[in-house]
Amino acid sequence: MFTHNKRLQYTVRVSEPNPALANLLLEQFGGPQGELAAAMRYFTQALADDDPGRKDMLLDIATEELSHLEVIGSLVGMLNKGAKGRLAEGVEEEGELFRSLQGAGNDSHLTQVLYGGGPALINSGGQLWNAGYIDSIGEPTADLRSNIAAEARAKIVYERLINVTADPGVKEALTFLMTREMAHQKSFEKALYSIEPNFPPGKVAGMPEFQEMYVNTSQGEGDMRGPWNSDANFKYVSDPAEFSSIGGDGGAEVLLPEAEQTMLAAMAMRVTSRPDVDPITGIELGKAPGTMPRTTARPANEE
Amino acid sequence: MFTHNKRLQYTVRVSEPNPALANLLLEQFGGPQGELAAAMRYFTQALADDDPGRKDMLLDIATEELSHLEVIGSLVGMLNKGAKGRLAEGVEEEGELFRSLQGAGNDSHLTQVLYGGGPALINSGGQLWNAGYIDSIGEPTADLRSNIAAEARAKIVYERLINVTADPGVKEALTFLMTREMAHQKSFEKALYSIEPNFPPGKVAGMPEFQEMYVNTSQGEGDMRGPWNSDANFKYVSDPAEFSSIGGDGGAEVLLPEAEQTMLAAMAMRVTSRPDVDPITGIELGKAPGTMPRTTARPANEE
Amino acid sequence: MFTHNKRLQYTVRVSEPNPALANLLLEQFGGPQGELAAAMRYFTQALADDDPGRKDMLLDIATEELSHLEVIGSLVGMLNKGAKGRLAEGVEEEGELFRSLQGAGNDSHLTQVLYGGGPALINSGGQLWNAGYIDSIGEPTADLRSNIAAEARAKIVYERLINVTADPGVKEALTFLMTREMAHQKSFEKALYSIEPNFPPGKVAGMPEFQEMYVNTSQGEGDMRGPWNSDANFKYVSDPAEFSSIGGDGGAEVLLPEAEQTMLAAMAMRVTSRPDVDPITGIELGKAPGTMPRTTARPANEE
Amino acid sequence: MFTHNKRLQYTVRVSEPNPALANLLLEQFGGPQGELAAAMRYFTQALADDDPGRKDMLLDIATEELSHLEVIGSLVGMLNKGAKGRLAEGVEEEGELFRSLQGAGNDSHLTQVLYGGGPALINSGGQLWNAGYIDSIGEPTADLRSNIAAEARAKIVYERLINVTADPGVKEALTFLMTREMAHQKSFEKALYSIEPNFPPGKVAGMPEFQEMYVNTSQGEGDMRGPWNSDANFKYVSDPAEFSSIGGDGGAEVLLPEAEQTMLAAMAMRVTSRPDVDPITGIELGKAPGTMPRTTARPANEE
Amino acid sequence: MFTHNKRLQYTVRVSEPNPALANLLLEQFGGPQGELAAAMRYFTQALADDDPGRKDMLLDIATEELSHLEVIGSLVGMLNKGAKGRLAEGVEEEGELFRSLQGAGNDSHLTQVLYGGGPALINSGGQLWNAGYIDSIGEPTADLRSNIAAEARAKIVYERLINVTADPGVKEALTFLMTREMAHQKSFEKALYSIEPNFPPGKVAGMPEFQEMYVNTSQGEGDMRGPWNSDANFKYVSDPAEFSSIGGDGGAEVLLPEAEQTMLAAMAMRVTSRPDVDPITGIELGKAPGTMPRTTARPANEE
Amino acid sequence: MFTHNKRLQYTVRVSEPNPALANLLLEQFGGPQGELAAAMRYFTQALADDDPGRKDMLLDIATEELSHLEVIGSLVGMLNKGAKGRLAEGVEEEGELFRSLQGAGNDSHLTQVLYGGGPALINSGGQLWNAGYIDSIGEPTADLRSNIAAEARAKIVYERLINVTADPGVKEALTFLMTREMAHQKSFEKALYSIEPNFPPGKVAGMPEFQEMYVNTSQGEGDMRGPWNSDANFKYVSDPAEFSSIGGDGGAEVLLPEAEQTMLAAMAMRVTSRPDVDPITGIELGKAPGTMPRTTARPANEE
Repeated sequence: MFTHNKRLQYTVRVSEPNPALANLLLEQFGGPQGELAAAMRYFTQALADDDPGRKDMLLDIATEELSHLEVIGSLVGMLNKGAKGRLAEGVEEEGELFRSLQGAGNDSHLTQVLYGGGPALINSGGQLWNAGYIDSIGEPTADLRSNIAAEARAKIVYERLINVTADPGVKEALTFLMTREMAHQKSFEKALYSIEPNFPPGKVAGMPEFQEMYVNTSQGEGDMRGPWNSDANFKYVSDPAEFSSIGGDGGAEVLLPEAEQTMLAAMAMRVTSRPDVDPITGIELGKAPGTMPRTTARPANEE
Repeated sequence: MFTHNKRLQYTVRVSEPNPALANLLLEQFGGPQGELAAAMRYFTQALADDDPGRKDMLLDIATEELSHLEVIGSLVGMLNKGAKGRLAEGVEEEGELFRSLQGAGNDSHLTQVLYGGGPALINSGGQLWNAGYIDSIGEPTADLRSNIAAEARAKIVYERLINVTADPGVKEALTFLMTREMAHQKSFEKALYSIEPNFPPGKVAGMPEFQEMYVNTSQGEGDMRGPWNSDANFKYVSDPAEFSSIGGDGGAEVLLPEAEQTMLAAMAMRVTSRPDVDPITGIELGKAPGTMPRTTARPANEE
Repeated sequence: MFTHNKRLQYTVRVSEPNPALANLLLEQFGGPQGELAAAMRYFTQALADDDPGRKDMLLDIATEELSHLEVIGSLVGMLNKGAKGRLAEGVEEEGELFRSLQGAGNDSHLTQVLYGGGPALINSGGQLWNAGYIDSIGEPTADLRSNIAAEARAKIVYERLINVTADPGVKEALTFLMTREMAHQKSFEKALYSIEPNFPPGKVAGMPEFQEMYVNTSQGEGDMRGPWNSDANFKYVSDPAEFSSIGGDGGAEVLLPEAEQTMLAAMAMRVTSRPDVDPITGIELGKAPGTMPRTTARPANEE
Repeated sequence: MFTHNKRLQYTVRVSEPNPALANLLLEQFGGPQGELAAAMRYFTQALADDDPGRKDMLLDIATEELSHLEVIGSLVGMLNKGAKGRLAEGVEEEGELFRSLQGAGNDSHLTQVLYGGGPALINSGGQLWNAGYIDSIGEPTADLRSNIAAEARAKIVYERLINVTADPGVKEALTFLMTREMAHQKSFEKALYSIEPNFPPGKVAGMPEFQEMYVNTSQGEGDMRGPWNSDANFKYVSDPAEFSSIGGDGGAEVLLPEAEQTMLAAMAMRVTSRPDVDPITGIELGKAPGTMPRTTARPANEE
Repeated sequence: MFTHNKRLQYTVRVSEPNPALANLLLEQFGGPQGELAAAMRYFTQALADDDPGRKDMLLDIATEELSHLEVIGSLVGMLNKGAKGRLAEGVEEEGELFRSLQGAGNDSHLTQVLYGGGPALINSGGQLWNAGYIDSIGEPTADLRSNIAAEARAKIVYERLINVTADPGVKEALTFLMTREMAHQKSFEKALYSIEPNFPPGKVAGMPEFQEMYVNTSQGEGDMRGPWNSDANFKYVSDPAEFSSIGGDGGAEVLLPEAEQTMLAAMAMRVTSRPDVDPITGIELGKAPGTMPRTTARPANEE
Repeated sequence: MFTHNKRLQYTVRVSEPNPALANLLLEQFGGPQGELAAAMRYFTQALADDDPGRKDMLLDIATEELSHLEVIGSLVGMLNKGAKGRLAEGVEEEGELFRSLQGAGNDSHLTQVLYGGGPALINSGGQLWNAGYIDSIGEPTADLRSNIAAEARAKIVYERLINVTADPGVKEALTFLMTREMAHQKSFEKALYSIEPNFPPGKVAGMPEFQEMYVNTSQGEGDMRGPWNSDANFKYVSDPAEFSSIGGDGGAEVLLPEAEQTMLAAMAMRVTSRPDVDPITGIELGKAPGTMPRTTARPANEE
């Protein structure tokens, strides 16, 4: 069960309104690498996990991410506060509001006109948040790796936002939020590696002959070797043609009941693109005005 | 530049049509953990990466994933082949086709009615593939972690599909595809750890005091300690209240120009929910038929 | 700031696993009328609202909805718990797992194969949750009405789920959750009607002549009068033609600079569909095999 | 059955082209609060409703909203008309078209490059319209409340657009459209309250003890009382801990067949995050270049 | 301006309720090839088109498609009518409603639980309608081709639905709707080919040397010649390698200011995946329990 | 099976970085008319098609479109290369990076902040690519028409991008890509018209009486005749009322079992909007402050 305290985890001090910066910050509110995605990712994993230690950790971190969602949303709200009043009260001279809306830049017009200056669950381009951003699949050895990666991505997006922010109060709050992602990544790493073994994830064994093979499918100048395809680590197949048609002739087949074969044959006949004709097509009709036959030249509406 | 050879990387042998199994396999065709997501994830990273070794590796693996997309799509096509002909030719007795459609089960009706039995870029529940499944952000220390996680997830979804498949040819092809994900994960791990250092990702340093702190935000029975929150690894904050209002009083503030303050005050007054009244609301109107005043009792259409 | 306690707000007791029922319950987890939508609707409104009483109420209710999300997610988790283990461990005889997956019914295959039995932020048809489900616009006289409606909808979807549930523990928990929506609706009604006035929402006045007009745009048998279009309440326009071309001739015009007019004229000429010709089209080519001219009859690949 | 007349319901007079304003107006064409959403919301409700009076009203208003969609789409078309010709004919000097596209501002580039200046079913940020904007659930006591809220929202978005518009013809047309939303809201209110009773919506009764309870889940400074949580209207629970673990111990349980318990236990053992170890993780590998063991130091491609 | 008549364009007679068939019919209501997509496709084109003949035709057909939306929605409503009452009134014995919901099959559970039996703007798999289904771009020589294709697709989906329907009234109505798509296709073909010339679409000329070239990028057994790649019609490039690196060396370059080069070089150095090391990775840590060093073996929670 | 060569099909030479142009080019990378949509459209069709000639052609063109995706993605990468380094290294003076981000214009902020300057599968407005852009249905006479239309649309979007581009290297590459769409359209036309017959698509015959009928559903000034509705080609119905209620009285009916009728009647009674009352509604409450009764005037929190 959740409870809330009206004090923020991190105090928000904004020097001046800035709807364009507000709009960029939406990345960490309703963007794919943002705090809602983080909170929901860990929360839904926690609900499905039976391991007591991991469940506790996932709930701890999910809850903290909700508090971060609140901090970033409060930043957005403060940066948009002036715009909110102007648009709602509409007391300015004709055209002035349009000019300020245009002047604010990037996609801040959307936050204002559609959302009235409030923080919305969209990214900085206006894309609605969707649950496809959450990649949990209910297997801890995969999900913890997803969480590690998610924290690394969130760290970087915060870093970019810090780089574009001049307001010291905003910058400080963003740096705090970024720092916490680093701490969370560490927890997830510890939890992953305390599953023994954790590689390969899952139970079903791979085919040994293909498990450490590397195929050089992209040919030509620029081919390079490194630990990711070295002979020490992999069986390196330099010609992709050698790694083709495994298990047979490379074809695809299915055994069909006779009735279904008959129907397929009928369909095939009906829709054959005959190789032995050269039909007139829409293109010939389309590119030669005046030269193609017309069924009638009389204007229909003269009748 | 890509080229194609009509032989599949892995030969597809299917014992009998099975539209329901075909529909489940769509997870790895147009689902979030499927081969299109994998191919596009690595391909778009390759285009943006200037590191020659990593770029080469990303192109190699992206290209192989396209070949896997072809294998899984061919499995779907074979499993649906009978259904395709039946629906297109429609020569069965009235009702028979409806019964077979219903009988096939799960969401196979969609593949048949909308897509004519062809492999579609949807998951097994009919959700359209979307690029939100790809989480690349253009920073290798994050993207490689995302790739490692993606391979682990794909491995697991293949494992589940293998578990539900009885057809030996399908099972074998799925096992091959699963195995390759394991090899790819290894390459991505090698590429990540050959960036030195790779943690923390990016450049901006965190706030040291919060970087290895763990907050016990989920309280109560079930609290547990482990390496993910141990004193050896973290400063453990057992009471989340201690980790609140950092940097001030926990409030949110912005300095606004006077004109904007005035407009906000006007808005605030206009929309105040007054705490000092107890209004009649829609609920009182709605739940007490006969007791509330009516403006007129005469039927409007009697006039 | 949020904190969490590992005890649920409402105790979850499930008699037996039932993946199909679990899948239906997803409506209130990741569906449009579900608890995430509710929590995020009120939480984002709270962040943008400056009215102290309303902000407090929105935070109270948002937080409670998060606790409800946890209850419904726990129900889903318990109902899927058996399926989770079976799929992950895959120890059953060949084909058995496929049969049980097919047998479970509705879209439960998706929760199992893709999400491993965990609660996912999808509706019961597999549609990913998206923030378009939240209709907040940052104006309290509109948002509170949206909240009232949202609670009414959630009440009804819970009611339907209760109607299809036989398990007494699940039924009881659903009834609790349904009841709380009724309480929330009452709070939102009270908050709306304590804004005085609250109709019309916003500031800009309507055109008096059209503000209480009702137009009978759907004609014919079935026309009916009631308080929603009565003469007592509306000026009733029985013939929609009378309510047309208001403010002019019903046309659309714009004054364009001459240069732009010239370019438009060029475009118009280029793409005119001439009414005075009767062209041969693709249809004539397509439906008369053998009768249309061919540019050559020789098979291309005989060359 | 629908028919159409080529005269608009409201005459459109635009003073000059303005692609940026056109783009903002898309909110009411293809945005969540726009006219397509309105028309489809009422139309789909009408098709499912058996109440003759309400069905007639829903059809009347749905049809009028289609006419409004036409008016707003015509405004968009006129404001983009110049841009349409310039882009299609491309006769300007090199770079001039790019500059005018950039200069127009907000997301007008999208309307031009992708949609050729025509009105598209997107919002002003480019988000595709989707049917998740429609929240009808087929229960009139809920749907009518949704309609009332939808009209209130549409009224406000029109108001904001009016505030940013200087062109008198556009402003007038927008004011007309806004006014009609007010009239529609009134009809829906009348239809709702002529259902007796209409609260609570639906049939299933709530649990009396929780139906008028208010829980103060958000604690701390800022707590406030008003009619939405007053003792007159609610049983007020000031400490959320009192409103926890209802119906038991706050845990979640399910009775599982023994075979499924066995499989779950196997899974649990396989994926335990052991609390009693402190593993080396990717982080230690990642942050300490030079100090971690390497399996080999020889460049792979020197071989 | 639109008006409506409560008589349907085609009379709907349904023999018995059938929620599963209703769900399949949603394809033509809220599916990608359905009537809403058709109506909106032509309606948005009409608003942007200045050609009087085409504009009139687009409005005629758009309006008729709205009437078809009404017919198909009415079919859905009738087929779901029994289910609607059962779910809303919930008077059946415990479990009975669940069994009937499960028994109905395909995705009909969604229409019932979420939409209360009303026609919803989703396809038969529950995917929300979205405006990405409309591919209009504001150029008649492209849009008319899109319309021709759309009518052909709609014809086929109707055909499949007819094939699975046994109810004579439903079948007849579907056949009527299918027939109208054929008529519409003819109109669009006539309108396209009365633009002279209409190929190539648009104004900008192609590069003559590549305009009729065909590249055999898919190699191997199965290569075939026909009019689509015959020597009569195309310059056939049998080896794709010949069609590579056009215009240079096949590389990608940009001239960058020196400052930006410096920053890129810094980034490159920071994130180099070094080919000359062979790092220990997460995999080695993950697969060798007991063999890797641990920082401490003491359980954290023993402290 | 696919292979790749690191040389591009067309050499990319960019004169200077231009993030705004890069963002526009995303239309052909991750936009609806872009190269991924093209490649996947043909590739999925190829997998499902049994006609050897068409399958080969679809694979040839799908593969080439992947190579085009690479060319357009490389253009985007080069145009963003400077921005990528600046954002990642963040070494500029405070505020400078924000100004350059704002200055770049259109939606380029999104590509930079979220995607780090890499090509993302979004359109120029930030909308995520989704598989709804692909309209294949598994029937060649429809799919080939869809392909023809898709090529025509892609041709036009390239043309618009060429019109806004001043950089000669970018312009040349775009012209090459545009040209190839023209060649592909020709192949698809040849393949369509070598199916004999190909109209009407599919097998089920239409109702002869409605197959060549044109209904003038949009009335009034602007009505026009042309080959698309001429008497030569169509039976023209000038009054849509004549084309109504076909097959009966224009009503919708279903035969219901008695039990279901009873439940529907109960529902109808429960939710009747009574025409014979004139209820007080929320509007009266909302607009008349001070005049409506209150249940109490005492402030709740004074207690």
